[in-house]
Amino acid sequence: MNGAESLVRTLVGEGVNVCFTNPGTSEMHFVSALDRVAGMRCVLGLFEGVVTGAADGYFRVAGKPASTLLHLGPGLGNGLANLHNATKARSGIVNIVGEHATYHIQYNAPLTSDIEGIARPMSDWVRTAKNSMTLSSDAAAAIAVAREAPGKIATLIAPADTAWGPAEAVARAAPTPPRPSVSNDAVRNAARVLCDGDPTTTMLLIGGGAVHGRALELAGRIAAKTGCLLAAEYNSSRLERGAGRVQMPRVPYPVDASVKMFQNVRHIVLVGTRAPVAFFAYPGKPSVIAPETCRTTTLARVEDDIDSALEALAAELGATATAPASIAKLSRPALPSGANSPEGIAAVLGALLPENAIVVDEAITTGRGFAQLTAGAPPHDWLSIMGGAIGFALPVAVGASVAAPDRKVIVLEGDGSAMYTLQALWTMARNSLDVTMLVFANRSYQILRGELAGVGAGAPGRNATDMLTIDRPDLDWVALAKGHGVEAGRAQTLEDLAREFKRGLASSGPYLVEVVL
Amino acid sequence: MNGAESLVRTLVGEGVNVCFTNPGTSEMHFVSALDRVAGMRCVLGLFEGVVTGAADGYFRVAGKPASTLLHLGPGLGNGLANLHNATKARSGIVNIVGEHATYHIQYNAPLTSDIEGIARPMSDWVRTAKNSMTLSSDAAAAIAVAREAPGKIATLIAPADTAWGPAEAVARAAPTPPRPSVSNDAVRNAARVLCDGDPTTTMLLIGGGAVHGRALELAGRIAAKTGCLLAAEYNSSRLERGAGRVQMPRVPYPVDASVKMFQNVRHIVLVGTRAPVAFFAYPGKPSVIAPETCRTTTLARVEDDIDSALEALAAELGATATAPASIAKLSRPALPSGANSPEGIAAVLGALLPENAIVVDEAITTGRGFAQLTAGAPPHDWLSIMGGAIGFALPVAVGASVAAPDRKVIVLEGDGSAMYTLQALWTMARNSLDVTMLVFANRSYQILRGELAGVGAGAPGRNATDMLTIDRPDLDWVALAKGHGVEAGRAQTLEDLAREFKRGLASSGPYLVEVVL
Repeated sequence: MNGAESLVRTLVGEGVNVCFTNPGTSEMHFVSALDRVAGMRCVLGLFEGVVTGAADGYFRVAGKPASTLLHLGPGLGNGLANLHNATKARSGIVNIVGEHATYHIQYNAPLTSDIEGIARPMSDWVRTAKNSMTLSSDAAAAIAVAREAPGKIATLIAPADTAWGPAEAVARAAPTPPRPSVSNDAVRNAARVLCDGDPTTTMLLIGGGAVHGRALELAGRIAAKTGCLLAAEYNSSRLERGAGRVQMPRVPYPVDASVKMFQNVRHIVLVGTRAPVAFFAYPGKPSVIAPETCRTTTLARVEDDIDSALEALAAELGATATAPASIAKLSRPALPSGANSPEGIAAVLGALLPENAIVVDEAITTGRGFAQLTAGAPPHDWLSIMGGAIGFALPVAVGASVAAPDRKVIVLEGDGSAMYTLQALWTMARNSLDVTMLVFANRSYQILRGELAGVGAGAPGRNATDMLTIDRPDLDWVALAKGHGVEAGRAQTLEDLAREFKRGLASSGPYLVEVVL
Repeated sequence: MNGAESLVRTLVGEGVNVCFTNPGTSEMHFVSALDRVAGMRCVLGLFEGVVTGAADGYFRVAGKPASTLLHLGPGLGNGLANLHNATKARSGIVNIVGEHATYHIQYNAPLTSDIEGIARPMSDWVRTAKNSMTLSSDAAAAIAVAREAPGKIATLIAPADTAWGPAEAVARAAPTPPRPSVSNDAVRNAARVLCDGDPTTTMLLIGGGAVHGRALELAGRIAAKTGCLLAAEYNSSRLERGAGRVQMPRVPYPVDASVKMFQNVRHIVLVGTRAPVAFFAYPGKPSVIAPETCRTTTLARVEDDIDSALEALAAELGATATAPASIAKLSRPALPSGANSPEGIAAVLGALLPENAIVVDEAITTGRGFAQLTAGAPPHDWLSIMGGAIGFALPVAVGASVAAPDRKVIVLEGDGSAMYTLQALWTMARNSLDVTMLVFANRSYQILRGELAGVGAGAPGRNATDMLTIDRPDLDWVALAKGHGVEAGRAQTLEDLAREFKRGLASSGPYLVEVVL
């Protein structure tokens, strides 16, 4: 057994049995070990942003880390943007990054770079393996870190000779420690705030990693019992919504709208999040969304045992058996007709969204109003971009679909964002992933038109407009999909969209719809 | 005048009048300033790897830095791989990276990251601007660094409020210091080695940044006078070759071949380079290519005044008027026919390569034998990947074409490599860049098959093969080009290739040929 094989056996032994990869020479022994070790599913991406984004999506749906296999510093660099998103979503990932053989690094060969330096800004843990005999225990340490609640990024750099040198044992990861319990005082303090204050000015704010399952239900019970306001962070790693579930309003992206949402809030009880801040700074507008007079009380931090904390809070409030507030009723809009518009698209989505779908949402501008008309669709999960690094949705859909092959994955994607990681389409085609994509082709970085005004830079002239538009030529998304081996169609109208969306839903493989705006 | 405008005026005032860009909210004031300051050509890329690669290509051809404009840490992250290549090519670049407003960073908004940390591994100089009044002098400092010989990467991080705050003056960059002269001793030592030793075991090895112009010619004169061996590094930032120029053999990529090239070399005189090292480590094979007994003498380091050093060496050797060795004669192969093959493709290239073309070469496996049959083509430049981070050629072609709009740019590109930065096609279409691309579609990471054996990992089984191939489905490069607004054709045979290549050469805009292998 060589080091590479010991590493793969360690991963598989710990249930890290999916590897999203784009390997090179320094990773060849790991690739070779895949032929000798059963139980590892390897998924090739043709660009590393696909690889790291897929690992993020996998964690959000499977609830456990995948591994990645990346080629040296540049390969890791290509994966950084989606690692950034994964960091902000608190997704657990075990990155394996190849490196030159230990004795070769000193020669500064063309591909030599400071891999630890590249890894550190987007990793919770970084280690360079020293030799083949201990590579397995290094991997076990990385796995243990990646599993730390709610999830962490562990990056293990493996020089080539740690892969091809001899190994003996296969290490086990340390058991994952339980999530820290919140103190009784924290529960009592939160209960006091929710009981004593004016419920119409008291908000229970739930972090993006805790808006599903038992936590979501308990939040609904507490809101029903106390009459408090209830909201989720702007974005969520996995928001459960749809008929029968607690409807969770989201803090809006535009700073004026979010300030307005909080203008009368006097007290926020924080559950797995912090007090909300503006996505960007704008001249003359606040960075902190809530008014200065608003107080905050933390029930649970993001890493705490949030379910138990809410359970204890519900018990303290006598809300354990209270019917949850704001349960969505099954209610689908009629299929609309006419010209494509954000509202019309929302209606098509609300009318057709299948039960148990996983929606991956990077429809930065077109999608802002999708929530209302999809709220009554059958139950589904909604995955949002938490780090703001665009190029998120297509790769995350890959990972989500690998984690849940029996569920339909729906991608809502802006054309500007889709371009950063369009290579994900090929991975969907090779693996016949059940993903239906709507690409909203407004031929521009539409969000930036608003942002230009928002930061006080006024209206764009000719040169600025050239930097905000992606027309001349228009991208042809049907051709781009075909080029990657993915079937596709175009929707010029809402009737087209309904037809094309149905076609995607009826397919068991990837299907892309260019929605012309 | 605000800070952003002072920055743009500083760049333009120093002749940094091209900006490759992919901006976001934090860069909106820079974009707006483009409407008010004349003289800056802004070129949009739809992915940051296009932006940084274009800046590398621009420097190699224009001989001066371009600027980039990138969006926060993730945007810079996406550009790192091609910054790595630029670092290894010693290209000068002024990166401008947006950042949250100084007072907003503390709130850890979704896009907050350690931008300096991300920049450092691929930058010679990193600075975060402190306020709008000094942003111009920060930019001037960055420009001065980027111009330091042979070229450096300067990364200036500009918080949003340094862009929208007030500015007064437009700073000037410090004059670029002359390249250090080599000492008389260095010249005499090199001359002694070349005169006293056995010329058949003495090699003049020229670095990849100095194989053009006067340096190339002088190297040829010195070789002719002394009879010494002459070679260039494996890759070059710009190699001048073709009829009438000194033919410069390159150190081969495969370690066995490079070791063989040096097996009888007893002494190397280094000019703008170091002793050659293996691209990767392989078990049982050396990292240092030359035999242990081989001695090295440095005439000039990469940053030194290499032209003057070679001038002095030629004078010392009495070679100033000697006719250069190995001048290539104009000689084109006949157009071949039949099935596509590396040799046949080389012949088509040799037969049709236009005078004064700029060839950007990332044909990692298919292109290894192109040198011989193109050596007698009319004079042309050959730009190679110096850092080994694939996804190089399409972006570099963008920058080369922007720098030299009157020259034909030819891209020789593997399909695996092309996929990392295929978004460059759209930038070529929007700017009507005169670029003809041959994409060699062997449907695999062909190089890795050899590397797998090279590192002793044996023959690939089913799982490993899946990680080395990019088939199932095949990429359709004609559709991918069309999707980006670029005309394209397919070559199943060498006759097809000649026809399609001619079509590209006759066009004044981008044209892509999928060469099916």
